[in-house]
Amino acid sequence: MSVWSFDGTDYLDAASSDPATLGWMQGFPPPNNRLIRFSDDRCLEFPESRWSLSHIRELMATTAVQRDPSRVVSLAVPPLSQQQAIETIRFKDLSDQELSWEHGLLRTYTDGIAIMHRGHLVYERYFGALRPNYPHLSFSLTKSYLATLAATLIHHGTLNDGWLVTHLIPELKGSAYEDATVRQLLDMEVGVDYSEDYADRHSAVWQYAWATGMRPKPNPYTGPTGIRALLPTLKKHGDHGNAFDYKTPNTEVLCWMIERLTGQSTAPFLSEQLWAPLGCEFDGSLIVDPTGVAVAGAGLSVTLRDLTRFGALLCHYGVASGRQIIPEAVVEDLMRGGDVTHFPQADYPLLPGYSYHNQWWVTHNPAGAFEGRGIHGQRLYVAPKAELVIARLASHPIATSAANDPITQPLIAAVSRFLCS
Amino acid sequence: MSVWSFDGTDYLDAASSDPATLGWMQGFPPPNNRLIRFSDDRCLEFPESRWSLSHIRELMATTAVQRDPSRVVSLAVPPLSQQQAIETIRFKDLSDQELSWEHGLLRTYTDGIAIMHRGHLVYERYFGALRPNYPHLSFSLTKSYLATLAATLIHHGTLNDGWLVTHLIPELKGSAYEDATVRQLLDMEVGVDYSEDYADRHSAVWQYAWATGMRPKPNPYTGPTGIRALLPTLKKHGDHGNAFDYKTPNTEVLCWMIERLTGQSTAPFLSEQLWAPLGCEFDGSLIVDPTGVAVAGAGLSVTLRDLTRFGALLCHYGVASGRQIIPEAVVEDLMRGGDVTHFPQADYPLLPGYSYHNQWWVTHNPAGAFEGRGIHGQRLYVAPKAELVIARLASHPIATSAANDPITQPLIAAVSRFLCS
Repeated sequence: MSVWSFDGTDYLDAASSDPATLGWMQGFPPPNNRLIRFSDDRCLEFPESRWSLSHIRELMATTAVQRDPSRVVSLAVPPLSQQQAIETIRFKDLSDQELSWEHGLLRTYTDGIAIMHRGHLVYERYFGALRPNYPHLSFSLTKSYLATLAATLIHHGTLNDGWLVTHLIPELKGSAYEDATVRQLLDMEVGVDYSEDYADRHSAVWQYAWATGMRPKPNPYTGPTGIRALLPTLKKHGDHGNAFDYKTPNTEVLCWMIERLTGQSTAPFLSEQLWAPLGCEFDGSLIVDPTGVAVAGAGLSVTLRDLTRFGALLCHYGVASGRQIIPEAVVEDLMRGGDVTHFPQADYPLLPGYSYHNQWWVTHNPAGAFEGRGIHGQRLYVAPKAELVIARLASHPIATSAANDPITQPLIAAVSRFLCS
Repeated sequence: MSVWSFDGTDYLDAASSDPATLGWMQGFPPPNNRLIRFSDDRCLEFPESRWSLSHIRELMATTAVQRDPSRVVSLAVPPLSQQQAIETIRFKDLSDQELSWEHGLLRTYTDGIAIMHRGHLVYERYFGALRPNYPHLSFSLTKSYLATLAATLIHHGTLNDGWLVTHLIPELKGSAYEDATVRQLLDMEVGVDYSEDYADRHSAVWQYAWATGMRPKPNPYTGPTGIRALLPTLKKHGDHGNAFDYKTPNTEVLCWMIERLTGQSTAPFLSEQLWAPLGCEFDGSLIVDPTGVAVAGAGLSVTLRDLTRFGALLCHYGVASGRQIIPEAVVEDLMRGGDVTHFPQADYPLLPGYSYHNQWWVTHNPAGAFEGRGIHGQRLYVAPKAELVIARLASHPIATSAANDPITQPLIAAVSRFLCS
């Protein structure tokens, strides 16, 4: 067993925490101390998470984001020579330590990584419990999926980003969202009293976890059941529109607006707008709360290749299989990003020069890249000007991206240089 | 609103209990009194069941029985002329009342029915909440799927039907299963103290529902969690091998044996052995208990067309797309059926001359038909000598088939005569 330390805590390394090595959920039945049960409230904790993030549907209620069986578009396996060439990459992490490509993947607890360059897969690899046909929880990449569709509705004039939330959701009068606009939701500039601190068990993110059903409720439990019972209880804190302030419930409000506007619930909407036209190979899986509502801020599981397909769609300015699926203007607007002066207050020292726009993290780098980011290492890096997509699913022990960015950021930079120079 | 009475209780009829008519789960959010939540313990009760049986995955933990995206075999839509011809059928139910085809479907709360004759779909129709792409809970048809694969393992010599259960599952020493054989499991001839009475809330079937997680546990709950914790507690009652006695846990024991024998859990086994080679269009969905174990006695949801594909496979003596997927001998053995002298004691007056074999109900009729049967009206009728398959998914208010057989049996006979004479 090998461990590494972060902030004074020791964690098993990737090889030692592989579910097969540890024997999690192996055998008929697995031994009691290797059984992962939702009710034990450990399934989203490391190292159980190394199995669970590839098996969410077996732990909680979900709904299918169906692909269209008659429209699957296949992706060719990456050529071995390209795969091997990428594996020769060495790079320095942000603490100036030199790492091999392999170490870069292992140190970030990568479960799967795929790289697409100039429209072709050039790298694809799976670790731990993930398999090509298993959807893996993407956490906040869910937000980027939904907000991209919201931006499309805005482009078509169906949704107006100047609308107040209460124009469609009068239930939110009296809450933080009463005087917030669609634009403020999309760019996460709502002043709401809600702490996103995953490490603090008393923070509001736990209220969210209980209301959504992603964690077993304490007994007794007197809080809200269901996301849409939670949202009206959230109070205003500070002003809207002044600064980037990342709050997951904003996406839940956006999703509620989209459902009411389109008359369609989120899973079939995603299926119709993305899964079917993208030719996804496998159904996505969306966690639903105890009232059947999609967990839009964190609930989507997707296979590595289907995630890559979404990245490729945006990388090609909204075109897939010769069809314009997302308007080109939506992608161009993403590349331009949000107000960079609104970003620094949010204290992301590892993301200099970034902005946040339409629930994507925008790099403002020469490749025009924007990123979907989810806790525990989920990442979708899309660089249209470099024709490069990097999709990574992971089960890093620490929620915040700040724990893996010191390796992830230079790893992405290294493979970008390798492929594009 | 129209109602009909059964055994002194009034039930809304099919049109009046359509989830869209009643407003179940309609709107964002639905009104509180039209919300279906697992925790309310109503989701498998009528009329909520009319929505829930097509939405099981949104209510509980499940696992995917994946189709192979590269091997989907399409089925042509039935010709309108054939569909219309079948709809002219009129027949008499067992109380000698004349019914139209349409009334036959409505009075049995049909959610979907497909008929395949000589290898072609000749009828396909959906009602209520079911759609062509929604898997519908098949209840005990799950047993027929699994036992067909068990019979295949026996044919190949991997499993021996003379083995004692404890040969593979020593954990069941001291239980009813200690001295039971595989053959006795397959033909439901195990003497076990377990009441299958769905109408009696004190019967053992409720212990099963709580252990499997298909119903919310009472609070406090001190019973077993997980199927494989329940099975060792079941005690012997009477002898094995003397008479047909339908008990769902027998299938759970069989499934446990198959998993331990093959080293594969049930969902990927079903996927590899059936979903992929059959060219199923959609993933099946299998309820898992709180320890991740497939509910083999009742947990499979399947789309109407994929269920029809399974029937067609057996109807064609195990061949699909020109490949022998199930051995011909397994189908022939099914047609020969079990010991008809062991059946009558079980008191199924509506099934004269039947036997039960390999978890199929065998008619011994001239068409060589055998039936999968699930509570609330699930049915898969396979008649190889008539080249006829009838697949029906339903949400009848009453669990027992005895409530719908007075219409279902003559309806099947009528369409058989219509197509085959």
